[in-house]
Amino acid sequence: RSYCSRMALHKGLLFRQLFETESSTYTYLLADTETKDAIIIDPVLETIDRDLKLIHQLGLNLKVAVNTHCHADHITSTGLMKKRLVGLKSAISKFSGASADIHLAEGDKITFGKHYLTAIETPGHTDGCMTLVSGDQSMAFTGDTLLIRGCGRTDFQQGCPKKLYNSVHQKIFTLPDQCLVYPAHDYLGWTASTVGEERKFNPRLTKSPEEFVNIMNNLNLKKPAKIDISVPANLVCGIHEV
Amino acid sequence: RSYCSRMALHKGLLFRQLFETESSTYTYLLADTETKDAIIIDPVLETIDRDLKLIHQLGLNLKVAVNTHCHADHITSTGLMKKRLVGLKSAISKFSGASADIHLAEGDKITFGKHYLTAIETPGHTDGCMTLVSGDQSMAFTGDTLLIRGCGRTDFQQGCPKKLYNSVHQKIFTLPDQCLVYPAHDYLGWTASTVGEERKFNPRLTKSPEEFVNIMNNLNLKKPAKIDISVPANLVCGIHEV
Ligand SMILES: [Fe+2]
Ligand SMILES: [Fe+2]
Repeated sequence: RSYCSRMALHKGLLFRQLFETESSTYTYLLADTETKDAIIIDPVLETIDRDLKLIHQLGLNLKVAVNTHCHADHITSTGLMKKRLVGLKSAISKFSGASADIHLAEGDKITFGKHYLTAIETPGHTDGCMTLVSGDQSMAFTGDTLLIRGCGRTDFQQGCPKKLYNSVHQKIFTLPDQCLVYPAHDYLGWTASTVGEERKFNPRLTKSPEEFVNIMNNLNLKKPAKIDISVPANLVCGIHEV
Repeated sequence: RSYCSRMALHKGLLFRQLFETESSTYTYLLADTETKDAIIIDPVLETIDRDLKLIHQLGLNLKVAVNTHCHADHITSTGLMKKRLVGLKSAISKFSGASADIHLAEGDKITFGKHYLTAIETPGHTDGCMTLVSGDQSMAFTGDTLLIRGCGRTDFQQGCPKKLYNSVHQKIFTLPDQCLVYPAHDYLGWTASTVGEERKFNPRLTKSPEEFVNIMNNLNLKKPAKIDISVPANLVCGIHEV
């Protein structure tokens, strides 16, 4: 029962968390330090140069750029990365409605060297939301399904609070207590949490299903500023060919 | 030779990186998961409630609040934390000129449970700058001495580019390649680097000493907005008794 962000010995696993300030998005870079095969999760158009420079400096072969869902608040750099890195494949849930080289379904593995992530369907924020869990269940990349002490909104893009509640309780809160939670966004300066912590302290998801639905249906949030350009762009890997 | 942010197995070490948006400051929380003894590095006044709530939720006994130096860009929460947490001690370099319960000198250890950090004098940004290195040299909290692909400015508060260059080259770049670099600030969305990476790719500190001094003396930066209130406040743990 350790809460340590660096707890598990992942011999030969490179891990980097990167932040994009405008949309408060976390991008994650993971690689096998031996084979140098790498994957990137939720890369953002604004920071493509930073991310590609780091990948280059570390000598990595980026194999897959995976999006946890079709984002409404920023444009993915996946499409542009594919143009700049030969052989790079894009991946997203088959329920996202977005085009990609790989359409993920429940249980699919994204492999890089001797490591892999398992894609778990966690709809609710959108129908195509996935949580990516490391092979040893020490890390979960939860997208907008579960945020640190929060969760993604459910008032557009097929959002459904009941689905989100069930996804978190059935698919994420059943992971080990010490499993690190790495979300797609954070607005309060948190960088990581654990499943055990969120199960205990998440102010929304510790409520009953009814209370949760009620909270989510009364948030009265503004429409994301970029939704009308982001969603159509992200349906085609961020490359809007107009 | 692993670049992994989670590389080392620190059984029973809790580690959390926290961010304060206004001053782009990183605060670090470390604890022994068995004894629950904890330390915090560079806590910021604006985020004291968030930090104390987390400490409380995790059931930690905060023993020491240490500042890597007397900050010019934000006010430390150390003094206010001492008022809220009985038994908490403040720590800072004896060369900082700041009052504190513990005045650190080269080689001093800050212990929490079975873990400790060693204080290493790395002057240059200020005379009282320290780098805190974990017992196994897997993590270095470099304050403003070494930032990710950058370094602290040297044009006020006893700043001296020659001293900073020597501190980095003699005290930080001599740590193991895979030692993780956790700075006090970041402005570009980096959360961690390694000694090996900075030794190879830091655009300033890979230069010759002469070139480095020349770069630093010609940055022409604005004075930090908060320097006239931050420095006097931080000389007394952030509690300005006026
Ligand atoms: Fe989203
Ligand atoms: Fe500073």
